[in-house]
Amino acid sequence: MVAVLCVAGSAAAQEAQERFAIAIHGGAGRAPASEAGRTARIEVLEQALSTGERMLREGRSSLDTVEAVVRILEDSESFNAGKGAVFNAAGGHELDATIMDGRDRSTGAVGGVTTVKNPISLARRVMTDTRHVLLVSAGADRFADEYADDPQIERVPNAYFSTEHRRQELERAQQKERLDADESMGTVGCVALDRQGNLAAATSTGGLTNKKFGRLGDSPIAGAGTYADNATCGVSCTGVGEDFIRNAVAYDVSARMAYRGDSLEQAVKDILGNEQRPVRGGIIAVSHDAQIVMQFNTAGMARAAADWQGRHEVHIGE
Amino acid sequence: MVAVLCVAGSAAAQEAQERFAIAIHGGAGRAPASEAGRTARIEVLEQALSTGERMLREGRSSLDTVEAVVRILEDSESFNAGKGAVFNAAGGHELDATIMDGRDRSTGAVGGVTTVKNPISLARRVMTDTRHVLLVSAGADRFADEYADDPQIERVPNAYFSTEHRRQELERAQQKERLDADESMGTVGCVALDRQGNLAAATSTGGLTNKKFGRLGDSPIAGAGTYADNATCGVSCTGVGEDFIRNAVAYDVSARMAYRGDSLEQAVKDILGNEQRPVRGGIIAVSHDAQIVMQFNTAGMARAAADWQGRHEVHIGE
Repeated sequence: MVAVLCVAGSAAAQEAQERFAIAIHGGAGRAPASEAGRTARIEVLEQALSTGERMLREGRSSLDTVEAVVRILEDSESFNAGKGAVFNAAGGHELDATIMDGRDRSTGAVGGVTTVKNPISLARRVMTDTRHVLLVSAGADRFADEYADDPQIERVPNAYFSTEHRRQELERAQQKERLDADESMGTVGCVALDRQGNLAAATSTGGLTNKKFGRLGDSPIAGAGTYADNATCGVSCTGVGEDFIRNAVAYDVSARMAYRGDSLEQAVKDILGNEQRPVRGGIIAVSHDAQIVMQFNTAGMARAAADWQGRHEVHIGE
Repeated sequence: MVAVLCVAGSAAAQEAQERFAIAIHGGAGRAPASEAGRTARIEVLEQALSTGERMLREGRSSLDTVEAVVRILEDSESFNAGKGAVFNAAGGHELDATIMDGRDRSTGAVGGVTTVKNPISLARRVMTDTRHVLLVSAGADRFADEYADDPQIERVPNAYFSTEHRRQELERAQQKERLDADESMGTVGCVALDRQGNLAAATSTGGLTNKKFGRLGDSPIAGAGTYADNATCGVSCTGVGEDFIRNAVAYDVSARMAYRGDSLEQAVKDILGNEQRPVRGGIIAVSHDAQIVMQFNTAGMARAAADWQGRHEVHIGE
């Protein structure tokens, strides 16, 4: 009987060592109207997904994987993060990012950085090299000065992030004061479970077009836009950031699993479908047992997923 | 039978209309060493408590009450909020505050403001006058410029917040790099249940002595340091802010009640006693049914409480 249990244990352990899963989003909202815009998004998501999938299959950590994937999305003009970030009301760019490690729920975030090419890597330095969780504005850029020799913390002039497409969005926003919820999105995020059974999550964004007064949304807030806990799940969110802060959405997915025994799918569905507590946007999540959930209540969400069993899919829009 | 139920219902409604409760904290950590320091804290807490108690008894809203109470604590030199805030590494002051309305979980917060005498009132303007939740740094001070005619949004030079006591703390911190967890605290907060059955919570702080790089703790983060939901409870936290963000503590109190049926007391006790997920500091909370909880795992916590049944108490330290 003991021998039988040992064999079963070994089989389970063997499966756990092969098992991995990854989910990626490129923001809630409608797919781009132009064929070229849609094709560009698909290509970048495919590149990001393949990179993440390969890293996880090779046994790399979920933390390295989510950082690498988000860097690819930040470097692309197609999403509202890094290059291609939206313009604020002053005609510049202020970037937010969070990373979280499900092993011990350590986390790091930056808000309103203006000169760091890949904010997600600076967020990781906050997590690993300081006793803090969140650095914002000019202080966060000064923190980046400490990494002059670190090739992952490349500095750029603020205009590096500018694109013509986003400039036109700013003009439209300034004319009508507010974009509708399905426009101008494109926050990016990635959640991964690695072959060691560790979860990690990362989110990066340029925030809201025409934002002012140093507005921060949920993307630099662990618990709101990003969460990871090996005991439950990893989560990255996109949408109306204020809804996600007010309802502590990323942590709430974890809490519903931990306290009520909800499945990951049920937890996400209940949050996005709750009419009394509206949360407009999308959520990607991976559970500790490799379930992948990608849901949204907007017109669409750019997203991608892969796992150890051969799942590999990329969607933009619906 | 119906008549009996109606009478019981009326009695319950009558009680609900008289019932109110308020809890206040002035930071986790040791009481001041000097008799004068202890006396000053007790006097200010007594003044704040009496003000809040009177407002609630008169039927004023919990939202007005928590704002008024926190303004009193901000105006006192005895606490690390407003006047008497700690110094950052650059020898200045950056203030954080959040307010939250349990009726609809609307919330507003400011982080790193430098010229607003009462940050809690600016946080309330963010909640009521913008579609945003969190404004930080220079942007938050610029937002305050819009309230030049509002007597609640008084502007002051940054040096207004300075006190000799806090300057000495900065010098000690810069000599030994880090203060221990029981020193230099004094974040303030208030939670109230009004006679209409509405909960509200507010938190205000100068953050961490010798902080740099635009560090934000949990005080400007709804869900981490502050939460209010009429369905469960109102919460304000004090302590090592990073622990409270990482564990979404203020929201977690509410989630444990909502999803697991924990009492308010059990929820707070489990969070502060969890050795696997250490959270160093204190929590004050009021439940929808007027239970008051004030717990801490530091050497002490300045705190006060009152309710409709005549409870009225002020403590500093243990």
